[in-house]
Amino acid sequence: ISKSGNTYSNRGMSLEEDLNATNTYYLANNIANIHKKPTPVQIVKVDYPKRSAAVIREAYFKQASTTDYNGIYKGKYIDFEAKETNNKTSFPLQNFHLHQIQHMENVMIHGGISFVIIKFSLYNEIYFMKASDILTFWQRQQQGGRKSISIEECRQFGTLLKTSYPIIVPYLNCIDELY
Amino acid sequence: ISKSGNTYSNRGMSLEEDLNATNTYYLANNIANIHKKPTPVQIVKVDYPKRSAAVIREAYFKQASTTDYNGIYKGKYIDFEAKETNNKTSFPLQNFHLHQIQHMENVMIHGGISFVIIKFSLYNEIYFMKASDILTFWQRQQQGGRKSISIEECRQFGTLLKTSYPIIVPYLNCIDELY
Ligand SMILES: [Mg+2]
Ligand SMILES: [Mg+2]
Repeated sequence: ISKSGNTYSNRGMSLEEDLNATNTYYLANNIANIHKKPTPVQIVKVDYPKRSAAVIREAYFKQASTTDYNGIYKGKYIDFEAKETNNKTSFPLQNFHLHQIQHMENVMIHGGISFVIIKFSLYNEIYFMKASDILTFWQRQQQGGRKSISIEECRQFGTLLKTSYPIIVPYLNCIDELY
Repeated sequence: ISKSGNTYSNRGMSLEEDLNATNTYYLANNIANIHKKPTPVQIVKVDYPKRSAAVIREAYFKQASTTDYNGIYKGKYIDFEAKETNNKTSFPLQNFHLHQIQHMENVMIHGGISFVIIKFSLYNEIYFMKASDILTFWQRQQQGGRKSISIEECRQFGTLLKTSYPIIVPYLNCIDELY
């Protein structure tokens, strides 16, 4: 395993798996306590077989009302969304639901740290972008502007996260620097 | 709907429903942003019927690795577990899993506000108890002591939450008072 550059993420893990491994490291080393929220599911039918575990036989995916991850770091409330795109030149804003944007804005209002981690899978480039910048791009779209964030804008307004080992996606470094 | 005493909770709603309604009120009125985490489920088989939503056909309940609720209030990280008991005289500690206790302790270490909301369903009595007190009772059990928290101890170390309307379980009042 290489310690430099983006080599580590070339092993084909998803952004979510990489973030989960990062959070496990942060937790085990008393750096932060941040978790992925479970996928919300509407459960309709459950079987209770004798002498074995309950089996969900009918359920549906529900839209999440918040973001993917939250927790605590140095006494501060941390809240973020992680998104991957296969696009080459931009990150489409349709990847966000309106209520996710509203949630990010609301977290900022309450004094929390809110941001997005965007991965351009084709390049293995992962960017940290503050929610305030996401909101600016969202408003540009609302006013008839472009429906995406160009990769150049990600490079300019975001911070490239260099993947490494054992902290695969070291996003807390950005919090130390930016807040 | 009565404004005093515990009448409101007599309508037979579960503690979880009451807390969700409380959190919806807190969110809509810009008081706090606190949510119940989805129930964690291990998805095994999903059908993708044509022209309709994906159906989960086999899934299992997983043990949660954290507590039920978390979020932000006045810039502070809030994290709690809600438990109901039908017991008359005590709250059994076996309602907690070890990893929940560890999570509560960890949240305290990172500077968050961690607590438990305990409901004695037979009496419609709801208590707010700080995680530090829960840990004390947990340690007493570890040292061979009683395996529960008596209702008298809940009354002594906890704070009775008077249910009301529209803030059904006004637990943030305790945070203002106790932290
Ligand atoms: Mg996501
Ligand atoms: Mg619970």
